Amino acid sequence: MTLLNGIGVCPGIAVGPLVRMPDPVPEPSAGPGQVTDKNAERSRISPAMEAVAAELRARAEKAKAETRAVLEATSYMAVDPGMMDLAITGVVERNLSAARAVFEAANTFRDMLAAAGGYIGARVADIEDVRDRIVAAVLGVPMPGIPDPGHPFILVARDLAPADTATVDPEKVLGFVTTEGGPTSHTAILARTLGVPAVVATEGALSLKEGTTVVLDGGAGTLNAAPTDAEVQDAEKRMAARRGAKKTWSGEGATSDGRRILLLANVGDPKSAKAGADAGAEGVGLFRTEFLFLDSAKEPTVAEQEEAYAGVFAAFPDGRKVVVRTLDAGADKPLAFLDQGEEPNPALGVRGVRVAFEDSGILDRQLQAISRAAERSSSDVWVMAPMIALASEAEWFSGKVREHGLKTPGVMVEVPAAALNAEQILGVTEFASIGTNDLAQYTLAADRMAGPLAALNDPWQPALLKLIGFTGEAGEKRGKTVGVCGEAASDPVLAVVLVGLGVTSLSMSSRALADVGELLRTVSYDDCKRLAQVALDAGEAQAAKAAVRAELPQLDELGL
Amino acid sequence: MTLLNGIGVCPGIAVGPLVRMPDPVPEPSAGPGQVTDKNAERSRISPAMEAVAAELRARAEKAKAETRAVLEATSYMAVDPGMMDLAITGVVERNLSAARAVFEAANTFRDMLAAAGGYIGARVADIEDVRDRIVAAVLGVPMPGIPDPGHPFILVARDLAPADTATVDPEKVLGFVTTEGGPTSHTAILARTLGVPAVVATEGALSLKEGTTVVLDGGAGTLNAAPTDAEVQDAEKRMAARRGAKKTWSGEGATSDGRRILLLANVGDPKSAKAGADAGAEGVGLFRTEFLFLDSAKEPTVAEQEEAYAGVFAAFPDGRKVVVRTLDAGADKPLAFLDQGEEPNPALGVRGVRVAFEDSGILDRQLQAISRAAERSSSDVWVMAPMIALASEAEWFSGKVREHGLKTPGVMVEVPAAALNAEQILGVTEFASIGTNDLAQYTLAADRMAGPLAALNDPWQPALLKLIGFTGEAGEKRGKTVGVCGEAASDPVLAVVLVGLGVTSLSMSSRALADVGELLRTVSYDDCKRLAQVALDAGEAQAAKAAVRAELPQLDELGL
Repeated sequence: MTLLNGIGVCPGIAVGPLVRMPDPVPEPSAGPGQVTDKNAERSRISPAMEAVAAELRARAEKAKAETRAVLEATSYMAVDPGMMDLAITGVVERNLSAARAVFEAANTFRDMLAAAGGYIGARVADIEDVRDRIVAAVLGVPMPGIPDPGHPFILVARDLAPADTATVDPEKVLGFVTTEGGPTSHTAILARTLGVPAVVATEGALSLKEGTTVVLDGGAGTLNAAPTDAEVQDAEKRMAARRGAKKTWSGEGATSDGRRILLLANVGDPKSAKAGADAGAEGVGLFRTEFLFLDSAKEPTVAEQEEAYAGVFAAFPDGRKVVVRTLDAGADKPLAFLDQGEEPNPALGVRGVRVAFEDSGILDRQLQAISRAAERSSSDVWVMAPMIALASEAEWFSGKVREHGLKTPGVMVEVPAAALNAEQILGVTEFASIGTNDLAQYTLAADRMAGPLAALNDPWQPALLKLIGFTGEAGEKRGKTVGVCGEAASDPVLAVVLVGLGVTSLSMSSRALADVGELLRTVSYDDCKRLAQVALDAGEAQAAKAAVRAELPQLDELGL
Repeated sequence: MTLLNGIGVCPGIAVGPLVRMPDPVPEPSAGPGQVTDKNAERSRISPAMEAVAAELRARAEKAKAETRAVLEATSYMAVDPGMMDLAITGVVERNLSAARAVFEAANTFRDMLAAAGGYIGARVADIEDVRDRIVAAVLGVPMPGIPDPGHPFILVARDLAPADTATVDPEKVLGFVTTEGGPTSHTAILARTLGVPAVVATEGALSLKEGTTVVLDGGAGTLNAAPTDAEVQDAEKRMAARRGAKKTWSGEGATSDGRRILLLANVGDPKSAKAGADAGAEGVGLFRTEFLFLDSAKEPTVAEQEEAYAGVFAAFPDGRKVVVRTLDAGADKPLAFLDQGEEPNPALGVRGVRVAFEDSGILDRQLQAISRAAERSSSDVWVMAPMIALASEAEWFSGKVREHGLKTPGVMVEVPAAALNAEQILGVTEFASIGTNDLAQYTLAADRMAGPLAALNDPWQPALLKLIGFTGEAGEKRGKTVGVCGEAASDPVLAVVLVGLGVTSLSMSSRALADVGELLRTVSYDDCKRLAQVALDAGEAQAAKAAVRAELPQLDELGL
């Protein structure tokens, strides 16, 4: 056994041969004077761009909703007329090869995006992917992307781009290992959506020999790079157990001794709400309402919003719970119709409910639409605000919600102060829902998207668990519901710890419901509390996870 | 009495007539065809720019060290040749007036700075100030800036720019009130440096009539806009008491019952260290070492560093304590010789000691220089790392420090996780020093520099006080020193609360030493503990401050 440690981001065992992502497309030479026939050279540009756009569109059609929009947007980038003009100019005026001209034109666009910063700046990886694809098409070399060796395999890569992950076939890719990326990276989110075991931030994984049989443990966050025969057999047994396990969840979430824990879905639109209901979610713990706003040139009308919200509520009728999060916009998720100016640190800026403190118009109209949609439905509609820090803010928001005839106002706990102020906050509002991704980001002062800080963003960090525990305690003291709706809730072992910290509902991607539900019913509430203490006492994230897993022998049987 | 509430950022009472900052210089009309003599028009640009640069240089010469560098840099901006060319082109080719041409040229430069983001982007306010001065010079209208009505006054403004604050005469300006800005804004920092009572984020202050006699309470954070005669007399009595109080501090910091609390200075170079010693500081609680690095095109040599550090140590010989913070660089304080790339949220990025985790070369060389300087001096040299979050990081750093023969390694507590992990961290290191500015920024998820979020950044936030309390408790349990070196330590009333939370040393700007020391000797340690509980129970910042102040009648006598 040679164990490499990473961060497990989707549980499950995978055993199989390792296959590396193809090497990146090389940078075309900038050497001058290589072009003899400028017309022939320039005529290679447009077909290559068209071909890449067509391929991305084709991928988009096959992709799931979560990634379709990204791929479609990227396909437009591939045929951007400004980029094409710039590339052609490079051939005609600067005597560059077509490949070099495309490379430089794409880099110019990339630098413009990067300078814009914020959300736009975050698209840099996409345009680099497009660049490499066009260069590959011009040069006639294989496209970068997921390889297809003709047999199932474990993919090892530095990190995956959205375009890579979108067309992964979970029948062929048994698991993902990356050397970079964190718990909230594209790789992690895609792995959870597909239910494929995945470990990120695994130093040394790219040095392993192609074809080596390895054992990946997405629960423990380890890669066994030299398993013994017995270890391979054991892993195969656990893979089989997992395949035998229920793929969908039905029934109610509860511990073995009957403490009810609502198992809910995170959804973003009517379609994902339907998928959540089909997967057995008891309700919605986080309905992100940004989908209507982010791509819109102007604010959607109250009637448009009402229709969209009613569509989500319709998936959970008959008194089932749907927790709506009001618009979480801000400089990192800019709204076309709301000019907020530049912020040096958008994540620490005027985002979430803070936008409404200066002008509550958008919030008022959204609450009106939620209220109307709720009246038309039989769902139990709860409404919560993102980015609350203080009890006075929670009180203000609760007042707004009640003014609109909605009975259950609450708050997201994602700012550390909200967890520290939880008792006061739960005195003036009805519930709290912990957003572990942002709460980790602020508690560890580590950007969720920053690769080098991935280990700090581990949801097993005891500092984060302490804040969750404060919130859970405050909920028990005030008799109020405390949920978790961040990525932490999708990790079945961590879910057990969260219940022990006083959390009463868990909201996750639908794919995780069965694993979480099945493990939860094997532990008593006292077990959960004991395991929570084990995690808190462990000192650091990796140790906490290992210590809790060591106390749960049933993980083997469940293949987790 | 008509009380406006703000955030008190420098204690003390001021009573006097309100004088407003002059209205901003108007935007010159963009109307075309107004220029008849292009040569006459273009010839007005260069003299105006030179005049403004000369004025800024003159101000720089009279300014204190803290602001001199800023003013000098700004004076170069005023005669930037690129900006001059652009303005002249505007007159010659676009037929703009000289004022409009300067205005647009400066805006082009400003937008370039803003797009650069980070530290450079933060200079936007400076270039707008330069722009308005040049426009005023071209138009022959009064320069924007601090007015001089010929008698002492209380200045009310939206916020102050560095150029405004630099030449404030504390004999004439009795106090500052601003409607924007926060506890770490330029206004706040300058007010504390000058020891002038100041209240920021005071809504409504700009609507008051010029000349109204008002009472400003920088301790309570209030502006009485319509004081009764009795209130004016009382305020005058308190002003007189304050003038009578000691301006410098001598002796040892302690509570009335003799609990020793070291009163230390925050310093940034040998000169400010000397000033701190002269003002009565018992040592240095925070020696910021960035001064050698930030303006340097290449890393300063070990020998250069050794000299500079020895210069600071020399101000505190004979076993007095100097706590050195290792380089706190990162994307928001970029180093010319260290390319770190762009980060979407620099404050949540690879900054502080995190830079050293990937390559510890700069840290190793700095520790070597500190160690050599310490050997040459008789100071008690302690060394701490910025941006520690985990015990494993603290352990790594402590090992490094000890390898270099330095005996007292410690950590800054400025990441919320460090406060939550304080007991483990203090198990592997010798001391902690709480940086309240950054700790508030992360705990409240509110950028220190973001005006609209100033109230969240109030160091009286009970959530922040809780984290300080956790750290203090951990220090008592482990028998280790816990200091505070953020702005919070400069507020004498808050200092009492900090001592009650278990803090054993307070480091501040030298100007604050006397106020903090005088108040501290009037309270017992039990008082401090009781007042800390009062603050924690108060729920929110303003209420916490008011509740603690109400328990300290001696504030009147001390004029605080």
